[in-house]
Parts: sequence; structure tokens; C-alpha cells
Amino acid sequence: MLGVFDSGFGGLTILKEFLRQLPRYEYLYLGDTARTPYGNRSAEVIYDWTKQSVEYLFRQGCPVVILACFSASALALRRLQQEWLLTWNRNDSRKAVNDTLAGVIPATRRILGVLIPLAEEAIKISRFGRIGILGTRATIQSGALEKELLKSRSDLKIYSQAAPLLVPLVEEGWTRRPETRKILRYYLRPLKEKRIDTLLLACTHYPLLSKEITGMMGRQVKVVNPAETVAKSLTDYLRRHPEIESRLAKTGKRRFLTTDRQEDFERLGSRFLGENIKAEKALIF
Amino acid sequence: MLGVFDSGFGGLTILKEFLRQLPRYEYLYLGDTARTPYGNRSAEVIYDWTKQSVEYLFRQGCPVVILACFSASALALRRLQQEWLLTWNRNDSRKAVNDTLAGVIPATRRILGVLIPLAEEAIKISRFGRIGILGTRATIQSGALEKELLKSRSDLKIYSQAAPLLVPLVEEGWTRRPETRKILRYYLRPLKEKRIDTLLLACTHYPLLSKEITGMMGRQVKVVNPAETVAKSLTDYLRRHPEIESRLAKTGKRRFLTTDRQEDFERLGSRFLGENIKAEKALIF
Repeated sequence: MLGVFDSGFGGLTILKEFLRQLPRYEYLYLGDTARTPYGNRSAEVIYDWTKQSVEYLFRQGCPVVILACFSASALALRRLQQEWLLTWNRNDSRKAVNDTLAGVIPATRRILGVLIPLAEEAIKISRFGRIGILGTRATIQSGALEKELLKSRSDLKIYSQAAPLLVPLVEEGWTRRPETRKILRYYLRPLKEKRIDTLLLACTHYPLLSKEITGMMGRQVKVVNPAETVAKSLTDYLRRHPEIESRLAKTGKRRFLTTDRQEDFERLGSRFLGENIKAEKALIF
Repeated sequence: MLGVFDSGFGGLTILKEFLRQLPRYEYLYLGDTARTPYGNRSAEVIYDWTKQSVEYLFRQGCPVVILACFSASALALRRLQQEWLLTWNRNDSRKAVNDTLAGVIPATRRILGVLIPLAEEAIKISRFGRIGILGTRATIQSGALEKELLKSRSDLKIYSQAAPLLVPLVEEGWTRRPETRKILRYYLRPLKEKRIDTLLLACTHYPLLSKEITGMMGRQVKVVNPAETVAKSLTDYLRRHPEIESRLAKTGKRRFLTTDRQEDFERLGSRFLGENIKAEKALIF
């Protein structure tokens, strides 16, 4: 079972693409809707809650958990991988854990994020190395995606823009309204002025606005959609790790867990996934 | 010490008015910023978290806690008063608790909300009994304010409008921006069409938009600001309950507690209160 975690509904845009590109696997989605959104919270809180959720998915039997949330990937992933691998892989020695982190031996449980796939795609397609990032306040302030990009190519010019109002607008279903276009133009203006050639949508809610964003940025800017990019990257990952791939059930089943009311999750979640959802309650706190 | 609870920053608009009208008392403000906003969450979650926070304020020594949050007042106040009074006032028998609820004997601890003051003010000032309510989705869906109004005057015409995007806009500090005016007009249009004579601002964030709202609704509509109304009502309450008033410290001190990062609370909270804040961390979960 592949675990997919998000602070709320946004991760469903990623899951939707997993279901399209990798339909054979079994999925368990957890949305922490009682405490969403994470995007304006502190690193400490995002870390604590991501940890609770990832541990919950591990206990449910997922050998791999994907953090389908940029705020969680930016603020919690690295620390989770480093501090918690020892606990989760209890039989391993400290050396084994270090070897695991270095990729020398396989871990029994893995956490993957959404930053590296996006950074790799940007490096691949950017023509002039002028890259824009649009994300939540937490993601932008962390500088984590910027660091990933510069690790591969230190000569990049990177321009970041926090767009905290886009998540509530998308959750209201206001993706086609003029009020949203006005706010979007406000956020995109500084990035246009910097003449970026590639724009990374570093939040899982933004694919629902990708048509508007692509239209506003113009043809010369390539807009990287996290859903497609992350799904492609997971496909690669599973191909390169048969020892993990072989442990995954291939029933095509999917289950949905929420920390708040099931009915609310089913109603709003169905809009994100584009199909009807039956949700269960996850008691993680 | 008067305890003032809110899911985040909005309650500071109420506290600000308390400090103006009742400056002598000691205040302890708790903002559950790690889990804000409550306005889109389920009744169950709002109840659980409000209970945690109220218990925390009681343990800190507040004999009275004011729920300076409409979502908490609408979804949690009545149940808290009924289910938890027995536990909090441990030495009282069940009969004593019922008598306390009925107002026959004084409770050792009290929880007050923001709905009743607003309803009473509306009844007092409405000329034609056509009342509009603007609130979060949770407040509007609960129907609690509507029920309070109809209890006093069953012939009222009440029109409710959920305005879920106003809280994030105010928290972004976008109170004077054209994007916000556009969204505000969208929410107010149905209320204008109903020719209401009184508009209740049933969310503690909205006083920061009261100038815009008053301008858009026109002179013939009286806009009821929750901060002034609730402070006036607390003044009355303390006058009518000398047994409680006499237990309150009169040092004029104020302390601020937050469940997320102190620095963030200080920065954003100062904007709501209009003065500098020093915050402490509250470990309630």
C-alpha cells in the first residue's frame, strides 16, 4: 500500500495523477483536514503533525509514504528522514541508518517528498536558468526548494513568491472567478517582471489554477505542474527500487482517511479528485 | 484574571475593546494559532479544541472565560456549559449544577460567549426586524445566532451569509485592497437585495473591515460591531455579578498565550491589537 499524506485536500491532485500513471497499486490517502492548512504555520508545528501522520500511515502497513504537500516536504521531510529512521527501522544499527540515508542499503520504510521531483524537472527544462517559485508562506520562507535547485546548478537565478490566498480560494471552488484572477495577477506580476523562463507550482492546490496561470505567464514561460512531475518521479523510483516495488499490493484499491468529518471530506475531496470518495475517520490525535 | 479565548487573532479585536472599556482588570488571552482557523471545521472538532483551551485558562486561574470567537460560541458554548460544569465545579452536586445553569446559585467558574450580546443589540436597534448575519461557514451553518434572535422575537426576518474568504484576507492585512472590496461586494450583494435594516458582523475579524462594509451597505443599514457590543455586555455582566467581579484582579496587566510560534503571534497580533505584544507559548496539546 502506498501512503499519500497531505495537510488537507491538495494532495488529491497528486493522487489523481498517481491513479492515472500507476493505477495498479493500492493507495491509502490521509488528509489532516482538522488542522489544515499548514502553509502559514511554524516549522515546529508542521514537523510535529507531519510526524504523527506519517507514523500513522506506517502503522497501517504502508512501506512508502509520499508527502504530497509542499509545506510538509519543505519543513519536515529532511528532519523526519534523519531523526526518525532509527526508530522506525528498529532493528538497524546507527551505521545501518546512515548507510540507508546514503542509499547504500535499503530501508524497511521510506518517506518521499515533492520538492526533489520538481527541482529535477526545472533543471531539465529551464532554457535560461531563470526560475520562479510560487508557494505557501511556509514553503517559500523555508527556502528548501531554492536549496534543492542550487545544489544541482549554482548559477540559477531563482525568484520566489508566497501566494497565501490561493489555497483558500481554491478550497472555496473559486478557480474560475474574476476575483481569483485579480489576486493571481497580483502574485504573478513580480515573477513576470523578472522574466523567468520556468515557473514551479510549489503547492498541490495550484494545479487547479494551472490554466489561468499558464495564460497569464504567456507562452515563453514553462509552467511545471507538480502532479504530473511527482507521478513521473514515483514511476521512476519504483522502477529503480524493485525491493520496495515487490512489497506493494497491486489490487488497484484506494482508501481515504480524514481527521475531521467524513462527509465534509467526501464532498470537497470529490471535487479535487474528480470522482466520488468514501472516507473513514483517522484517529491520529 | 479574565480569560479571553479565540481560535487565533480575531479575538484581539474584542480584547482591544475590553481594554478600552474595562482597563482595570487583568487579562489572559489565548489564541490557538496552531489550529486556526476554526470557521470551516466540524462541530465536533471545534468543541474538542475549545474545551481544551477553556480548561487551560481555568487551570491558569481565570474564574471567567469569554469565548471571543463566533465559531466557538456557536458550536461549543452551550455544550461546554452543560456537560462540563459538573466537572469544573467538582464540589457541586448535579442539582447544584442545574441550579447554576438556571442562574439560581453562582458557579465558581463561568464561560461567556459572543452570540447573546450581538442578538440583544440587534433586537434593540432593528427598526423593521430585517436582520442580516455575516459569519464563517461554521457559524452560519450552526444557525445558533438565528436561534438566539428568534427566541426574543419570532417575527424577525433573518438572512444569513457565509463569508469564508474574509478571514484569510484580513489575516493577510488586505483590508484596504481592491481585491478585498470586490469579494466583499460579492458577499454583501444578497443581503442588500433583501433590504435588511441591521447587519450583524458575526466574526471577530470583520471589525477590521467595518468601514468598507458600512460604506457598501449604505446609511439605512446599521452595522453592529461585535467588539463594542461584547465589551458593553461584559461591563453589564460584571455590574450584575459582584460575587464574580470581586474575585477579579485589578492590576491592568495583560498576558498573551499562543499555541504556535511566539514571534509570529507577536508580529500579527500587534496589528490586530494596535499595540506591541509579548507572547508566551501555551502547551495545551
